[in-house]
Amino acid sequence: MYIVYGMSASGNCHKLRMVLESLGLPYGWTEINSVAGETRTREFLAINANGKVPVLEIEPGLYLPESNAIMAYLADGTALMPTERLERARVLQWLFFEQYSHEPYIAVARYFRRFHPDPDSQRDVIASKMPAGNRALQVMDDHLRANAFFVGGRYTIADIALYAYTHVADEGGFDLTLFPAITAWLRRVEAQPRYVRMPAQ
Amino acid sequence: MYIVYGMSASGNCHKLRMVLESLGLPYGWTEINSVAGETRTREFLAINANGKVPVLEIEPGLYLPESNAIMAYLADGTALMPTERLERARVLQWLFFEQYSHEPYIAVARYFRRFHPDPDSQRDVIASKMPAGNRALQVMDDHLRANAFFVGGRYTIADIALYAYTHVADEGGFDLTLFPAITAWLRRVEAQPRYVRMPAQ
Repeated sequence: MYIVYGMSASGNCHKLRMVLESLGLPYGWTEINSVAGETRTREFLAINANGKVPVLEIEPGLYLPESNAIMAYLADGTALMPTERLERARVLQWLFFEQYSHEPYIAVARYFRRFHPDPDSQRDVIASKMPAGNRALQVMDDHLRANAFFVGGRYTIADIALYAYTHVADEGGFDLTLFPAITAWLRRVEAQPRYVRMPAQ
Repeated sequence: MYIVYGMSASGNCHKLRMVLESLGLPYGWTEINSVAGETRTREFLAINANGKVPVLEIEPGLYLPESNAIMAYLADGTALMPTERLERARVLQWLFFEQYSHEPYIAVARYFRRFHPDPDSQRDVIASKMPAGNRALQVMDDHLRANAFFVGGRYTIADIALYAYTHVADEGGFDLTLFPAITAWLRRVEAQPRYVRMPAQ
């Protein structure tokens, strides 16, 4: 059985919960509190030298890190990952967009506002994340004005990757009411079979 | 014929030159100077709404952005991309490591030192990139002490992705002599058939 090492309130970790539930795969979940330094212990670094969650234990002692690589692994051969060559590349395009142009602004602003012991002291850092975060949301909104989902007109791991932090972007100080196509798409994601909410913290 | 829209001195763009040359694929190259704002014109935003190079023109009017997604597209079905499920996921693992934990520190420090009109004014930003950049290099060095290449014991796009900015990390102020396994691996990459140097600027 798969075991996820993850922090439930992390969007990157929630991606895996969404994929595993969507595919109806059995899994265990070992909660790791990265805010409390649990990804920097010697024990954890032995399963991911890069010191980040999530990590998927595929079988005892066999570990795969990087949320988007894990999603691609789990979704391989399922309806969540296209088989056509260009559509596969488009899914990867959005996964890399998410990790490079979206997460470092939207997830990081949320992190400082929600999880930092003194968010007020981080006001400048948080403010510095807003312009690029809003640009990423605008790129998504423009795309979703003409497309029900990110790739190929149907629900894939590209949608799950971008849903993970977008649906809690308000916790980072972003105003989603400015992006109506995103808001409508969030509801379409939530209407998918076996959709699972991020656990309340 | 494929056309790359790219900046030759950019590691992200150089990845595509390395893959295309390695595979012996014919291609054209349209130089785009992102430092001079050429990725923010209306014309360029029409081919990549996210305003970044490289972009691959697959056929007239059909564009694919994101360097690592383009590499995966080009390498699909070739020796540069494994076919086994877990090995494919491991390649993606390192591609996401590169974009999230490596490029934002090593490439960005190099950018400010080499391409900023007044690098001295950016001393604090550059210094802020060093610890995480060195951590990424340490993760690579540790892995390469036990492995000739990143995945499956042979040359793949994971090596190309990480080579692109690592081989010019000294231009970002990183001391590669501290990482002997990386240095030996750089030479192994350079010994590959049809290896191509980053064009001199």
